[in-house]
Amino acid sequence: MKKVAFISVFNKEGVEKFAKGLVDLGWEIMSSSGTAKYLKDNGVSCTDLSSFVGEPILGHRVVSLSREFYAMLLARYDNEEDKKELEKLNLPFISLVCCDMYPLIEEIEKKDTTYEKVLEKTDIGGPTMLRAAAKGERIVVCDKNDREKVLKWLQDDEIDAKIFKRALAAKAEYIVSKYCMASAEYLSDGKYSGLIGEATSICKYGENAWQTPAMLFKTYTTDTLAMANKNFKRVAGEPMSYNNMADLDRLLQTITHIAGGFDLNTKKVPFIAVGVKHGNPCGAAIGEDSSEVLEKMLSGDLRAIFGGLIMTNFKIGEKEADTLLTFKMPEGKRRLLDGIFAPEFEENAIEKLKRKGDKCRFLANEALKNLSSNSLDKSFRFRYLRGGFLKQPNYTFVPNIKEATVEGDQNIIKQDQIIVDLILAWAIGCTSNSNTITIVKNGKLIGNGVGQQDRVGAAKLAISRADDAASVLEEKNIKADLVGAIAYSDSFFPFPDGPKVLIERGIKIIFTTSGSVNDKDVIESCKVEGATLIMFPDKVARGFAWH
Amino acid sequence: MKKVAFISVFNKEGVEKFAKGLVDLGWEIMSSSGTAKYLKDNGVSCTDLSSFVGEPILGHRVVSLSREFYAMLLARYDNEEDKKELEKLNLPFISLVCCDMYPLIEEIEKKDTTYEKVLEKTDIGGPTMLRAAAKGERIVVCDKNDREKVLKWLQDDEIDAKIFKRALAAKAEYIVSKYCMASAEYLSDGKYSGLIGEATSICKYGENAWQTPAMLFKTYTTDTLAMANKNFKRVAGEPMSYNNMADLDRLLQTITHIAGGFDLNTKKVPFIAVGVKHGNPCGAAIGEDSSEVLEKMLSGDLRAIFGGLIMTNFKIGEKEADTLLTFKMPEGKRRLLDGIFAPEFEENAIEKLKRKGDKCRFLANEALKNLSSNSLDKSFRFRYLRGGFLKQPNYTFVPNIKEATVEGDQNIIKQDQIIVDLILAWAIGCTSNSNTITIVKNGKLIGNGVGQQDRVGAAKLAISRADDAASVLEEKNIKADLVGAIAYSDSFFPFPDGPKVLIERGIKIIFTTSGSVNDKDVIESCKVEGATLIMFPDKVARGFAWH
Repeated sequence: MKKVAFISVFNKEGVEKFAKGLVDLGWEIMSSSGTAKYLKDNGVSCTDLSSFVGEPILGHRVVSLSREFYAMLLARYDNEEDKKELEKLNLPFISLVCCDMYPLIEEIEKKDTTYEKVLEKTDIGGPTMLRAAAKGERIVVCDKNDREKVLKWLQDDEIDAKIFKRALAAKAEYIVSKYCMASAEYLSDGKYSGLIGEATSICKYGENAWQTPAMLFKTYTTDTLAMANKNFKRVAGEPMSYNNMADLDRLLQTITHIAGGFDLNTKKVPFIAVGVKHGNPCGAAIGEDSSEVLEKMLSGDLRAIFGGLIMTNFKIGEKEADTLLTFKMPEGKRRLLDGIFAPEFEENAIEKLKRKGDKCRFLANEALKNLSSNSLDKSFRFRYLRGGFLKQPNYTFVPNIKEATVEGDQNIIKQDQIIVDLILAWAIGCTSNSNTITIVKNGKLIGNGVGQQDRVGAAKLAISRADDAASVLEEKNIKADLVGAIAYSDSFFPFPDGPKVLIERGIKIIFTTSGSVNDKDVIESCKVEGATLIMFPDKVARGFAWH
Repeated sequence: MKKVAFISVFNKEGVEKFAKGLVDLGWEIMSSSGTAKYLKDNGVSCTDLSSFVGEPILGHRVVSLSREFYAMLLARYDNEEDKKELEKLNLPFISLVCCDMYPLIEEIEKKDTTYEKVLEKTDIGGPTMLRAAAKGERIVVCDKNDREKVLKWLQDDEIDAKIFKRALAAKAEYIVSKYCMASAEYLSDGKYSGLIGEATSICKYGENAWQTPAMLFKTYTTDTLAMANKNFKRVAGEPMSYNNMADLDRLLQTITHIAGGFDLNTKKVPFIAVGVKHGNPCGAAIGEDSSEVLEKMLSGDLRAIFGGLIMTNFKIGEKEADTLLTFKMPEGKRRLLDGIFAPEFEENAIEKLKRKGDKCRFLANEALKNLSSNSLDKSFRFRYLRGGFLKQPNYTFVPNIKEATVEGDQNIIKQDQIIVDLILAWAIGCTSNSNTITIVKNGKLIGNGVGQQDRVGAAKLAISRADDAASVLEEKNIKADLVGAIAYSDSFFPFPDGPKVLIERGIKIIFTTSGSVNDKDVIESCKVEGATLIMFPDKVARGFAWH
C-alpha cells in the first residue's frame, strides 16, 4: 500500500516540487481546496481530502477539522485496534503532513490591520494538523526549508527515524507556540508576551565554566544587525562564548548609538572603533583615518583592552591589524584580543591577528559598514528576574545637540570638535551600566566610570580610570590632562558635589540632564567655576542602562 | 432558543458548580465522555456531544475533532449563510467553551516520564477548541479561576462584551502557546525555548522616563521567592518602578547566596541585611542583633544607601525603623529609602518610614524569614540580546570553605570570624556585576568594587569606595582601616598587580579562584608579603555575573 502525504499550504510557491519528489518515491498525495487545485494545475495528481471527509463547510472555515482526518493522523501504526478502525472507516494512515499556516504574524505587523482581519487570518486547522501529526509521530514539515532535507532522508532509507521525526515534531510545536503567542499578544494588547527562540549555538558554558548548558537563541527578526541570525559570520576563531556574546551585544548598542548621534547631528557617520571589556566600553574613538581611530580607541585604556573585544564600521586590513597588534606594545610583544567584529577582513589581517588555540574570534557583518540613525535596535528588551521578566522598549533617544539648554557659554555648542565629543560621550555613557560618568576628549574616550551606586563615585571613578590610562600610556605615574575634556552624566546631578569633582580637574563642559530639585544650585555652582552645562530634561533624555 | 455551553475538562473538580450556574441562567450544557458523565452524576443534565458528531473513535483519541463541532464554534453569529448552514446541519451555535487541557507540563516535570507518556498527555482537541472558540468570538473559559467572573458577567447583562470576550480569548491563546512551548522544549531537548509570561504590573516607565510601556511579567512558578507571583505583598508605598524591580531581583540573589553560604558552612543562617543602589550591593551585614546588623549594613556606604533599597530576613519593627531612619543622620534629618523588603513589618514601623508621595515601597514576603541553601533561584536565566537571547543556569555554586586550597597560613580558615567574612564577601561579590573585588570586615561589607574592565581597576575601586565610606562615616577625609579585612575576587588574578594593590593597604586574606597561567607568581608574591590566598579552581567557582 502506498504511503500517504497530506499537503496543504497557504504559500504554494514551490510545493509542487516537494509533492513530485514524494510521488517519485512512491507516495500518494492527499490535499484539499486551493492546494489540491494548485498541485493538479502543476501536474501532480492528488486525492482530494473531501472524498474522505466531505466538502468544506462554512465558506471553507471548516475544511480539515474532521474526525476522519484526525483518525488518519492519530491512529497508532502499531496498534491493531486503531488499524482495524481505520480499515472499517475505509481510511488510510497519513504518514506525512506538509503544512504552513495563514500569515497571522504578517497581518498583525500591518499598520492598517483590524481585529476582524486578524481573526480572519488566525489559523485553526493548520496548527491543529501540525500538532496532531507531531503527536501521531508522523513526518511533520512545517518549514519549507525542510522539504529538501525530508526528501533526502526518505531516499536514504529513513535513518534514525525516531530522532528525525521528533526534531520535526518539535519544530512544529515551536512554530505553533510562536503563532499562538503572537495572537495572545495582539488580542491582549501586550498583556501576554514572551521571548521565544530557536537555539543557534551552544556555548561551551555560561558566564562561568560550570554554568551549562548555555545557549544562544534566535528570535524571529529581519534585522541585519541581529546577532543570532547568521548576519555575523564567523570567518575565523573558535566559537563565541556566553560572555563574548554579551559583549558583542553591548558593542552593537554603543556603536549604533555613536552612528545614530553623528547621523542626526552632523549628517555624516565617521569611522568608529569601540573596545569592550566585561560588558562596558573601555575604549572608543571616531575619526577619518582607520588606523588613527584604532590607536585612539586602544589608548583609551591600554590595560583593559588586553583580551577585550572590538567593533569597527570599517574593514580590518593588514594596516589595521598591525595597529591593533603593536600600538604601544613592548618590542616583540603582540596585543591579544578575544574578538574582532567588522564589516569585512582581509585574509592576511586575520593571519596576523590569529591567536594560539584560535582564541580570537573574527566575525564579519557587512551591515556594520552602513550604520546610521536607522541602525538602532528598535525591539523591546527583556530582563529576566526571579519568577518573571521585565520588558521595555530599547533606549532609542538620540539628542539633537542644537536643541540642548546651555547653562553657561552659549557658543560652546557651535564648535565642531565639541559637538563631536558631546555625541561620543553621550553614546558611550548612555550604553554603559548606570550610574555612569563618561569623559571624552578630542574624539576619544579617556575615562568611563560605570556601574556606580552614586554620582560622586562615578565621577571619581571616571577620573581615576583616566589617570590610570594616562599612566599606562606614558609608562609613568601621572594624572590625565582633562583640560578641554567633556564629561557626560547619564542622569542629573542631585547635588553640586558631582560636577565639583569633575571641574576640579579642569573639565569645563558637562553634558547632563536636568530635573533635580537642586538644579539651580548645581547650575549656579558650575557657573561660578566657569563650567558650562549642556542639558536635556531627564524625562526625555536620561540615559540609565542595564539595570 | 437556549444558549449552548460546551464543557470538557480534565480536572473536573468544581466544574458542576459552573455548569449549574449556567443552567440557572438559562443555558443548555453540551459535554462529552468523562465530563458528561461527571456532570450527570452531579445532577447537571447535559446533551452529549456524540449525539451531534458520533461516538468517540480510536479509543477516545478523536472525540471533539469533528466538522460539526467546529461548525458550531466557528459559525459567525451575524452571517446569514453560516446560520443557514448550521440550521441545515441541525446544529446549534456553541456560545461558550469551558475547557482545560491534559496536564502535559506536569507530565514533563515528572522525573520518571517517558516520550510515550508525554505524547499521550499531549492534548490536541483541547487547544484546538480553545483557539477556535477564541477565533469564533465565543466566551472561552480556559482558567478555572475565571468561572465565577464569567457567571457574574453573564448575570450582569454581559457589559462590554467585545472587550470581555477578547480578554478571555487572549488568555486562551497564551495558555496554548505555553503548552506548545513546553512540548517543543521537551521534544527538542531544549533547542526551542522561551520565556512566556503574563503582565502582572505596568511600570510607570522603564529604566528611563520615556521608555514606555514597561511591564513586569510573571512566568509559571511555584517559587515562594518569585517576584511576579504576588509573593511579595506591597503593604505600603507607591508601585514599584522598573529599576526597583531590577534591584529587588539583585537583593534576592545576594541575600539567598549569603543565606546559602552560612547554611552550608555554619548550619545557621544569621540575621542578614543587604542594601542595593543601582543594581549592586552598597551595604551588607550579618549578625545576631537586628538593629546592629542594620547599622553595619548602612555604614557600608552611608552616601550610596540614601535613596536605596534594602532587604532583610527579619521583621522590621519600630526599633529597626528608628535605626534605618536616624543612624548617623544629622539631628532632625531622616534617611530616605526607596524600598524595603522584609518578612513582615510592624504597622508603626511603616508609619515612621513612610515618605512624601509614598516614595518608599514596603513589600512583605514571609518566605524571607526562612532562607536556606534551598532558597537559591534554580531557574534558568535569560539574557536578551539583539535578535535573540542567551540562556544559562543561575549561579548556584556555594563554596564549602573547608574544601578550599589555602596558600599561606593554614590556620586561617579555622577562625570563625574569618569564615563569616569569607562567606559574606563571596556572596556579595559573586552576585555583583563583574569584574568585582569585594572587601568585608567583621561581618560587614566595607567596599564593593564592581563592574570593572580589569582586576586592578576593581581592586582600586573597592579600596576607594572603602575610603570614601570611612570618610563619610567619620565626617573627615580619612582612609579606611583595612587591616584584618578580607577581599574576594570573582575570578583569578592574571598577574600579581591586583593582590598587590590590596596587600599594600593591609589586606592579608584574599578569597579568589585559581586557574591563571601566572598562579604561581601570584601565590609567591602574596606569600612574600605575608598574605594568604583562599582558593577554589576557577572552573568550578568563578563568580562572574550580570554580563
